[in-house]
Amino acid sequence: MSNTPWQTDIDFDKHGKQTGFIRLPYSEHDDAWGVLPVPIAVISNGDGPTVILEGGNHGDEYEGPIVLGEIIRDLDPGRVNGRLIIVPAINLPAVKAGMRVSPIDGLNFNRTFPGDPLGSTTLQLSSLVHDALFPLADAFVDLHSGGSSLSIIPSAIIEPSDDPALAGKIQAAVAAFDAPMTVVISNRGDPRTSTASAVRAGLVTVGTEMAGAGTVTPEAVKICRTGVHNLLSHFGVVESDAANEGNDAPRTFYELGSKAHHLSEDEGVFEPLHTLGTNVRAGQKAGRVHFLSDPRRAPKDIVFETDGILYGLRHPGRVRAGNCCVVVASPSQPS
Amino acid sequence: MSNTPWQTDIDFDKHGKQTGFIRLPYSEHDDAWGVLPVPIAVISNGDGPTVILEGGNHGDEYEGPIVLGEIIRDLDPGRVNGRLIIVPAINLPAVKAGMRVSPIDGLNFNRTFPGDPLGSTTLQLSSLVHDALFPLADAFVDLHSGGSSLSIIPSAIIEPSDDPALAGKIQAAVAAFDAPMTVVISNRGDPRTSTASAVRAGLVTVGTEMAGAGTVTPEAVKICRTGVHNLLSHFGVVESDAANEGNDAPRTFYELGSKAHHLSEDEGVFEPLHTLGTNVRAGQKAGRVHFLSDPRRAPKDIVFETDGILYGLRHPGRVRAGNCCVVVASPSQPS
Amino acid sequence: MSNTPWQTDIDFDKHGKQTGFIRLPYSEHDDAWGVLPVPIAVISNGDGPTVILEGGNHGDEYEGPIVLGEIIRDLDPGRVNGRLIIVPAINLPAVKAGMRVSPIDGLNFNRTFPGDPLGSTTLQLSSLVHDALFPLADAFVDLHSGGSSLSIIPSAIIEPSDDPALAGKIQAAVAAFDAPMTVVISNRGDPRTSTASAVRAGLVTVGTEMAGAGTVTPEAVKICRTGVHNLLSHFGVVESDAANEGNDAPRTFYELGSKAHHLSEDEGVFEPLHTLGTNVRAGQKAGRVHFLSDPRRAPKDIVFETDGILYGLRHPGRVRAGNCCVVVASPSQPS
Amino acid sequence: MSNTPWQTDIDFDKHGKQTGFIRLPYSEHDDAWGVLPVPIAVISNGDGPTVILEGGNHGDEYEGPIVLGEIIRDLDPGRVNGRLIIVPAINLPAVKAGMRVSPIDGLNFNRTFPGDPLGSTTLQLSSLVHDALFPLADAFVDLHSGGSSLSIIPSAIIEPSDDPALAGKIQAAVAAFDAPMTVVISNRGDPRTSTASAVRAGLVTVGTEMAGAGTVTPEAVKICRTGVHNLLSHFGVVESDAANEGNDAPRTFYELGSKAHHLSEDEGVFEPLHTLGTNVRAGQKAGRVHFLSDPRRAPKDIVFETDGILYGLRHPGRVRAGNCCVVVASPSQPS
Amino acid sequence: MSNTPWQTDIDFDKHGKQTGFIRLPYSEHDDAWGVLPVPIAVISNGDGPTVILEGGNHGDEYEGPIVLGEIIRDLDPGRVNGRLIIVPAINLPAVKAGMRVSPIDGLNFNRTFPGDPLGSTTLQLSSLVHDALFPLADAFVDLHSGGSSLSIIPSAIIEPSDDPALAGKIQAAVAAFDAPMTVVISNRGDPRTSTASAVRAGLVTVGTEMAGAGTVTPEAVKICRTGVHNLLSHFGVVESDAANEGNDAPRTFYELGSKAHHLSEDEGVFEPLHTLGTNVRAGQKAGRVHFLSDPRRAPKDIVFETDGILYGLRHPGRVRAGNCCVVVASPSQPS
Amino acid sequence: MSNTPWQTDIDFDKHGKQTGFIRLPYSEHDDAWGVLPVPIAVISNGDGPTVILEGGNHGDEYEGPIVLGEIIRDLDPGRVNGRLIIVPAINLPAVKAGMRVSPIDGLNFNRTFPGDPLGSTTLQLSSLVHDALFPLADAFVDLHSGGSSLSIIPSAIIEPSDDPALAGKIQAAVAAFDAPMTVVISNRGDPRTSTASAVRAGLVTVGTEMAGAGTVTPEAVKICRTGVHNLLSHFGVVESDAANEGNDAPRTFYELGSKAHHLSEDEGVFEPLHTLGTNVRAGQKAGRVHFLSDPRRAPKDIVFETDGILYGLRHPGRVRAGNCCVVVASPSQPS
Repeated sequence: MSNTPWQTDIDFDKHGKQTGFIRLPYSEHDDAWGVLPVPIAVISNGDGPTVILEGGNHGDEYEGPIVLGEIIRDLDPGRVNGRLIIVPAINLPAVKAGMRVSPIDGLNFNRTFPGDPLGSTTLQLSSLVHDALFPLADAFVDLHSGGSSLSIIPSAIIEPSDDPALAGKIQAAVAAFDAPMTVVISNRGDPRTSTASAVRAGLVTVGTEMAGAGTVTPEAVKICRTGVHNLLSHFGVVESDAANEGNDAPRTFYELGSKAHHLSEDEGVFEPLHTLGTNVRAGQKAGRVHFLSDPRRAPKDIVFETDGILYGLRHPGRVRAGNCCVVVASPSQPS
Repeated sequence: MSNTPWQTDIDFDKHGKQTGFIRLPYSEHDDAWGVLPVPIAVISNGDGPTVILEGGNHGDEYEGPIVLGEIIRDLDPGRVNGRLIIVPAINLPAVKAGMRVSPIDGLNFNRTFPGDPLGSTTLQLSSLVHDALFPLADAFVDLHSGGSSLSIIPSAIIEPSDDPALAGKIQAAVAAFDAPMTVVISNRGDPRTSTASAVRAGLVTVGTEMAGAGTVTPEAVKICRTGVHNLLSHFGVVESDAANEGNDAPRTFYELGSKAHHLSEDEGVFEPLHTLGTNVRAGQKAGRVHFLSDPRRAPKDIVFETDGILYGLRHPGRVRAGNCCVVVASPSQPS
Repeated sequence: MSNTPWQTDIDFDKHGKQTGFIRLPYSEHDDAWGVLPVPIAVISNGDGPTVILEGGNHGDEYEGPIVLGEIIRDLDPGRVNGRLIIVPAINLPAVKAGMRVSPIDGLNFNRTFPGDPLGSTTLQLSSLVHDALFPLADAFVDLHSGGSSLSIIPSAIIEPSDDPALAGKIQAAVAAFDAPMTVVISNRGDPRTSTASAVRAGLVTVGTEMAGAGTVTPEAVKICRTGVHNLLSHFGVVESDAANEGNDAPRTFYELGSKAHHLSEDEGVFEPLHTLGTNVRAGQKAGRVHFLSDPRRAPKDIVFETDGILYGLRHPGRVRAGNCCVVVASPSQPS
Repeated sequence: MSNTPWQTDIDFDKHGKQTGFIRLPYSEHDDAWGVLPVPIAVISNGDGPTVILEGGNHGDEYEGPIVLGEIIRDLDPGRVNGRLIIVPAINLPAVKAGMRVSPIDGLNFNRTFPGDPLGSTTLQLSSLVHDALFPLADAFVDLHSGGSSLSIIPSAIIEPSDDPALAGKIQAAVAAFDAPMTVVISNRGDPRTSTASAVRAGLVTVGTEMAGAGTVTPEAVKICRTGVHNLLSHFGVVESDAANEGNDAPRTFYELGSKAHHLSEDEGVFEPLHTLGTNVRAGQKAGRVHFLSDPRRAPKDIVFETDGILYGLRHPGRVRAGNCCVVVASPSQPS
Repeated sequence: MSNTPWQTDIDFDKHGKQTGFIRLPYSEHDDAWGVLPVPIAVISNGDGPTVILEGGNHGDEYEGPIVLGEIIRDLDPGRVNGRLIIVPAINLPAVKAGMRVSPIDGLNFNRTFPGDPLGSTTLQLSSLVHDALFPLADAFVDLHSGGSSLSIIPSAIIEPSDDPALAGKIQAAVAAFDAPMTVVISNRGDPRTSTASAVRAGLVTVGTEMAGAGTVTPEAVKICRTGVHNLLSHFGVVESDAANEGNDAPRTFYELGSKAHHLSEDEGVFEPLHTLGTNVRAGQKAGRVHFLSDPRRAPKDIVFETDGILYGLRHPGRVRAGNCCVVVASPSQPS
Repeated sequence: MSNTPWQTDIDFDKHGKQTGFIRLPYSEHDDAWGVLPVPIAVISNGDGPTVILEGGNHGDEYEGPIVLGEIIRDLDPGRVNGRLIIVPAINLPAVKAGMRVSPIDGLNFNRTFPGDPLGSTTLQLSSLVHDALFPLADAFVDLHSGGSSLSIIPSAIIEPSDDPALAGKIQAAVAAFDAPMTVVISNRGDPRTSTASAVRAGLVTVGTEMAGAGTVTPEAVKICRTGVHNLLSHFGVVESDAANEGNDAPRTFYELGSKAHHLSEDEGVFEPLHTLGTNVRAGQKAGRVHFLSDPRRAPKDIVFETDGILYGLRHPGRVRAGNCCVVVASPSQPS
């Protein structure tokens, strides 16, 4: 990590468990010579593969950071064969604020790859992951939840790859996570996400979307914890202590098609008419937008535009035109 | 409504259905001679009692305003015996912002009674309810949900009264709402809430706490809708079309005791270990506060201090010292 | 001015011209022992009456402060018979910000009378006028313009009085101002304005509404300048150098009736269809509210609800529900 | 429009009238999977040229969006020969806020061309116009007004071109608009404006500056409406229903020279001494800056530095050092 | 503490050391049922007097809270004869923000006595001190520093009293603190400060002003620590372990006269020409205000208006009109 | 300066003293055609070298701008041999706000070189210095102080150069400044500072760090004034009137090593235990972080990690994790 703006006491080549910080210079009004101390741990032993575990891509998605903190504190390095690079709160300014986007420069970290080591703070953080960490690794796990705006069925996410060999490894890894659903999400081909960037870098890449809504639930933490351990076992880095490994039932894949996202055309309050996991049909009413300032005005219906499973729902009652209220996932077959 | 700062076209003594606005002068930077148009409806027929139905006391609690909007649009005045005064979005500035407190003066409407007709906007709004509406009514229904910060078991709320006769009527009315739980909440005796104020004014008063978390769920809307119709039937103002009325099973009352509220002593992210409705015992772990900026630091436990039912949980993951994380309700007998 | 929070070097009993400041202690974050230096001038000579001239009641209304500044700098005390107390920027924090309301406490100075010497800054300022200045004076002139939100026909304003003798003196003084229009405005009887308060204190009170829109125009400055000099001549305090005095044509009075203010019911952009001064009839279209985010939606008409003269128009294009878009004045006879 | 971040249901090659939205993904804190729905209409028929009509470049300039909305709702496609691509609120976030600059990233849309499809929101919007719309068109009309800070004489604007043939077509088109004035404005050669960018792309480009001041006036709407219809007739896309076409009087051109803009050197309140349209001479007083916080201080004069017509005036009374107070246009001959 | 909005586990009548919180209900947007946990300690033994030690009156004055924290953690209750009630961070919201005024309601705690138990948060906090703590105590020590805006010579402060007996006790106590200076400060007779309020309640009251500037220095902490221990020894509550007690040299008293505070009349940057402690004479230059945006303009002198010792200097370079730049203390004799 | 966005009346080739502004177009919401008037002076005579003197790189560092203003107003051009280009408030928006970073785009000017003439305001300002001024000059002097967050021993700063000849000239010039300390600061090799950029451009470059803390002290102004005059004498541009020139005592150089900066790991209030200039040893306690919200918690020590001189201290009491609290300089030999 020479010739970079950031500094750390971590030695990525050393065996055992190291915990500390990557210090990113941050010269603001009330701290001319200060840093952002981004927490990091390296747990290394034997000669297995290197896996990056990332939490806190968005600062209001908590299951990943909680589970990665447990691993940092509790995992015995003697059980490791390979190397774990764990950054549980990569977007530290957003994590401290509980915000999706960075309060420093207003940027969405997950739309800034490959970043810029001399750019604004969020660009420096994505550059850190892209330029300093990706070259060290074989696999990349990016633990998201739905965030403040969305409740989502806990799911493991496949980022598409044009390379069939890599795509196969990704599908196998995502399936090993063993989430309630497995979904292909391409973000409309946006190249600026961390997972799209990791796939371009040739890493076996796994995403997740836990329950979300900006909160923490016991169920979602458990799914995330089990899934990460399943994955580490799948990669051969940490032997599983559970029998979960044996789950080799055939798995259904879903995708978010071009009509998956149902938007409000109005400002008001969204009332959903169904709960997550419901099977829905195009033409059914999905929900209503109410106009509380003028109760004389009838609410406006939002209608399903595709068949599938009700995969995501807007959490905050308030909506504005353009807000995504309902997300429907359709059965799919990743190519 | 003469000699008051607000104006309206509504005639409170007229039969039939009237919908419109109470216009509160609001002279701000970019509107010297403007108003806040607070929506109101009066549905009147026959000679039964007058019931005030209030929604939007806090601006991020949506079930009440949604259900009251349905009544305003759909209720046939011919079915009414008495008078409904419906203010579904009383704290209009907060409702438009989706905030608990008013964005105009920062005040919590439910801590401002009896208000002040020449005070700041929120004080004028509570004065409107206290000085102009309470004198017209026999009963007052204040429809709350948990708001942005709390998930709560849907429940009907008893505001305590020193008058045994009034207390009995209140208990009967609250029981008629037929919510999943019935809870006595005194807000530590705070006299500034709308329900405490209504009880002092001698009104048969019913509160609610629907699911909350700043969102809308199909289940909570249904409970609220059914409960309000049960209440109107109980008051004899609108005959019920359902058999729900017949529910006269003995009802368990709960209360929030002096140890009901469990606070965080730290800034971090709260992970609950149980779900709403769980029976809990003093001494059990209730949850943990995680320190995501420094994963080396062990999370801090929050422990139940009383036995009871897990009645409320903080919704946002982020907590600061003093934030209420867990609320336990205990069986009680309203005096 | 002993026993008050404010301090000044001005001696109200001294002859000649004094200019300086009333210093109101203001202990804020970055100035523990600072003051707000409210400019004031006293120009005194002979034994004529005392007239208070106030500008800057709202901080975005500029004609009054400009004209009062000219008098402070230019008026020869030898021409005075009586005493002028001139506070050209009474609401100094708002004047410095160019805001209608105070940036310190968010209050509208003109809704805070009689104020409170130990209250927040705006309350202290209105207390200064009410408690320290009103007792010194025979007459009070409060120079307003339309402010950022309104374009208004330049006019002199009558504040109603229950005392027929005082009412007569007020009408004579307002007529002497000789503005293009003379209008009775009661602010719906609000007792908290400076003019209502001055009338209660028995002062001969004159208000104005110059052109407004948060700007300055050569015409409005001229009307204000001439009017103030007419008034001072009428009061016998400063002999007029112009022949303007001779205008004793019979004068038409107008008032703002209960249907004068036409509000938007929607958020959008307001397009007026007529210009100020037009004679309008109830039922005519007054303007339209456009929905620029969705051009498919037809604009919504605003219709005149009364006959009269188009006296005021909203200036900013953007409107929200409740904003006043059109003001119609009707011929009247002050009692 | 494949391989772009935005999506739309509009088919640019289809005849008839289509109205809808271009949806730009916008992943913010409270809407992870939402969009900005930028309104668009395509009205197509026959084989005439393609004209882009843009409004809402700045969000506080309303005549263009109002007139383009009328065309979208009212124009019979049967009257069209060619294709109109109408984006009446291109800078949607600014339009919704009534702001010159975007509230999302603080950028002035008209200083961001050619944009960046992966940049911040405003850069994506200018990329949309530059990369997706310009290649479809023969002509580009960008409808501005003075905005919140300036009152300007309604005028049609010539963007200079180095290509004599294109420059000639531009002059003819601008003259056809038939505004009260025709002015060459080069923005000091800034290449980042939408009109400079359109000229570089070879489009026949017409700009406007309507009355401004952040308001709407009946006169300016009429001039804008007539001008756009004149232009469409000139381009042969929509036959005019009026005789306006026949105006072929010789036209005077104006320009903003190097001394056109007169700036304040102080913070205070600007009082103009002349009205728009006045013929002025270098050395005359143009206005004064008043120091309302200290009326003892004499106002500071601003003096005309060039001869010409008083073309623009600052609208807000408040000025700071560097603010443009007065704009003088001089007779010119576009090369 | 029954019938009050706040709650605490502290038993004021119990001997020994208790540390904990007073919990003030605070129902904000993201915490409906939360509290402000104001730290408090009671250290009690024997039958000596009760002394309240208050820190954090303003949130950016740190010596008091630091020294009181040491006492809370380190003082052996066995050494106490009497009762210490220690509230080291009374204005908790301001202390957490490092602000003079409360970020919740914008109020300066030290201008809100006697407070209001049902008012806004700051009013509730001053009511807590006034209504719940003052009645328990014999003496009150309010530890201030200069705060963010002022550097002050460390000093002990006498609040004037009309009661000669109380005034004598106050002078003796303040002298016992043994600060580098002893100053009478009456805040122009403002009755709303905590010390003025304590004096009215008959308490022996001691104030301080440590070095200030919003920072912490080793010297100021030492002076504060020694002074508080001197005071507790003087009150007979904690026996001193040092010989400091013996300091009975005659003491010079100073006061802030009517010309003590020197204000800027301009916006700019203040350069002092002397350092704290300098003996100054009326007519000398005290400093200059520079106009950095226009270096052609000569700086404006501020001139001493009285003789005395340079007691306070504005810390931030930036000044606005009305800001206090220089404070001169004059020798005095408290009556 | 043709083909650039900025304009000026200054003629860089003219002899004598010229003062004025570089006007950078700045089109914001309330000033569409305005500018930022950045003050500049050119004082030119004879054929000596050209020296750029820059102040206001950060807006809260005042000694440089004050001293440069004196030179602009007072220096007789007849005493000059060469050319002084003085920009005393280069980052004008930050200087007017008293902020380290620009309030317009949030950027730290000193991390934006070489800038961008079409970028955001701060990028345009650094481009102005880099593209328009550097090519005219032989030497560059950048006058910093510690800013709001740091108190620093007044010192002259060496920016490292790879070119031994240039490095030698820089060391000689920095030594001639004759500050209390001379320190090599490389900002960890960051290429985006103005001094690193000037060195790359081949200019003899001198930096400074005056006392700081966001304030002005008589001592620091004197050191800055003397140092700048020493420098101009050293460069042969202005003959010194003082004997200071003769100081050729051997000079000790210091540097900030990899362990120079001591950061807080916690949020709290920092108490230093030593004053600036103290000789310190690794392992000693440097200070403590206090937790004022919970006095039960013991403060956390910060320990010196290196030997040296205590060169800098955090000024604001409040700290957050990552804030720099203590800076230690070590003896060094610039290569």
